[in-house]
Amino acid sequence: MYKIAIAGAGAMGGRIGVSLKQAGYDVTLIDDWQEHVNCINENGMEVQTEMDTYTVNIPAVLTKDVSGQFDLIIILTKAMQSEKMLQHLQEANTIHKDTAILSMMNGLGHEERLSKLVPLSQIYLAVTMWTAGLRGPGQLLLEGEGAIDLQRADGEKDSRTEVILNMLNTSGLNAQISSDVFKSIWSKATLNSVLNPLCTILDKTIYEFGCYEDAQDMITPIVDEIISVGQAKHIDLNRQTLLDKIEASYPKEAQGLHYPSMHQDYNNGRLTEIDYLNGQIVEYGKVFNIPTPTNALITHLIHQLEMKNH
Amino acid sequence: MYKIAIAGAGAMGGRIGVSLKQAGYDVTLIDDWQEHVNCINENGMEVQTEMDTYTVNIPAVLTKDVSGQFDLIIILTKAMQSEKMLQHLQEANTIHKDTAILSMMNGLGHEERLSKLVPLSQIYLAVTMWTAGLRGPGQLLLEGEGAIDLQRADGEKDSRTEVILNMLNTSGLNAQISSDVFKSIWSKATLNSVLNPLCTILDKTIYEFGCYEDAQDMITPIVDEIISVGQAKHIDLNRQTLLDKIEASYPKEAQGLHYPSMHQDYNNGRLTEIDYLNGQIVEYGKVFNIPTPTNALITHLIHQLEMKNH
Repeated sequence: MYKIAIAGAGAMGGRIGVSLKQAGYDVTLIDDWQEHVNCINENGMEVQTEMDTYTVNIPAVLTKDVSGQFDLIIILTKAMQSEKMLQHLQEANTIHKDTAILSMMNGLGHEERLSKLVPLSQIYLAVTMWTAGLRGPGQLLLEGEGAIDLQRADGEKDSRTEVILNMLNTSGLNAQISSDVFKSIWSKATLNSVLNPLCTILDKTIYEFGCYEDAQDMITPIVDEIISVGQAKHIDLNRQTLLDKIEASYPKEAQGLHYPSMHQDYNNGRLTEIDYLNGQIVEYGKVFNIPTPTNALITHLIHQLEMKNH
Repeated sequence: MYKIAIAGAGAMGGRIGVSLKQAGYDVTLIDDWQEHVNCINENGMEVQTEMDTYTVNIPAVLTKDVSGQFDLIIILTKAMQSEKMLQHLQEANTIHKDTAILSMMNGLGHEERLSKLVPLSQIYLAVTMWTAGLRGPGQLLLEGEGAIDLQRADGEKDSRTEVILNMLNTSGLNAQISSDVFKSIWSKATLNSVLNPLCTILDKTIYEFGCYEDAQDMITPIVDEIISVGQAKHIDLNRQTLLDKIEASYPKEAQGLHYPSMHQDYNNGRLTEIDYLNGQIVEYGKVFNIPTPTNALITHLIHQLEMKNH
């Protein structure tokens, strides 16, 4: 049977893992949080939805204790932990020559980092529009609907893509094969590069941010820099589409009442993923000699704030 | 006798006014803060220095009650109040054709705004390196030494410049006539455009800001934009000199342990002077078609924060 690992079993990893497990697949959760792993193994994963609360039995293992081989490893760690995770999984002999490594992480450049460890032909990229929350160790909160866009990182189609697609869809995860997953990744990263750091710096909800009368004037240069860098990487982004998408999240009825995840990371004393959003744009800008002053300033501001925690 | 008014008698206005008064000049303080004006008139201005505490009797008047004519009006209101103040002083017939209007305010563009109301040949600009504090209504706190750079706004020399210089120097205010007061104004505004908003946004002291290992990389683009805009206005600023000046303020032994004044304004619920610093750079940039993305972002961030107070 196809063996699946979820490397990084936080909220989103939990959601994907539980969905696959409920559909009957062989799934193992891998995580570094001892209490979380213990709770899942002792009591199962408690899942609270809008409708009811139930338990899903699913094996969990600490990263250091992982063993056996997997056919599909879905990476859902924090961006800065993914390389270390993949390196460990490799050293623990859990990856064979046909193992598909599927990154569902937010942010940019994962295929470049992960392909230093495994061939690009084994790497798959996905963008998920699902959301998920963790109420505590072993306690998932699942609300709303979502979808997944998926493609092999080198753009090729193969039978494994179809296998993965089929597993996600029989698990109700609403996946489709994309012909340009990078466009989806960069679109989501643009939204995240604007709202995540700015709401964190300002300590504002998305709605409060959007109430500023010059919000569009404020965010357009940030978006334009990302579009310029994207063009150099042959990613075709549309300014108006991106601005519309960001502005569509302002209303209270949309995501307005939420603080973005970076705000939560920062306020919980965790490092943020800024280096995989605006910081990655700045790094690409240096490579292509494209100025990225607003993304650089935002990256510095978040690093300055992170110093308060670390 | 030469009649002097201090329009805006906060900490710095108080310091300048008291110094002139102690040297025997005819000085009137003008301010909008009723309690402050009452205290000064009833008890005199209480002055606390490093050495001792004493009282200086000096007349104070509410802006709306001002009358008589002045030969020298020193403007030390908040930047956004100066035009309204000057307009009121004009309507109250306190300005005659030889009255010197001396702006000692921080920020850029004051000569352009004030010269809409009085001829440029009557306007003088000064930069002060003195500092001052207000402990409460009618209570000045005076520490440290300072100096004043002074020039007529149109660059011409005249006898009034000499008269003003002489009054300031006989009052111990360490003034000199500058041959390029705009360079001094822009240098100080550059320092203020970097440290004031960034320490406010980050809620950091100057020392804490400077502890960030990439601080120089963070501030250089902001400074470079100001230099480019300055060049278009024929103001010759030196990057290294400006960076050195900013960095010299980081140590705890320098200004490091202080929050800049904008941080205090913001935290006391007052509007900031951002539109006369980074915001003015952005406006000049538009005129000369010079990109100012980091100054624009900083201006937006401060305006976003101000919405929390107003």
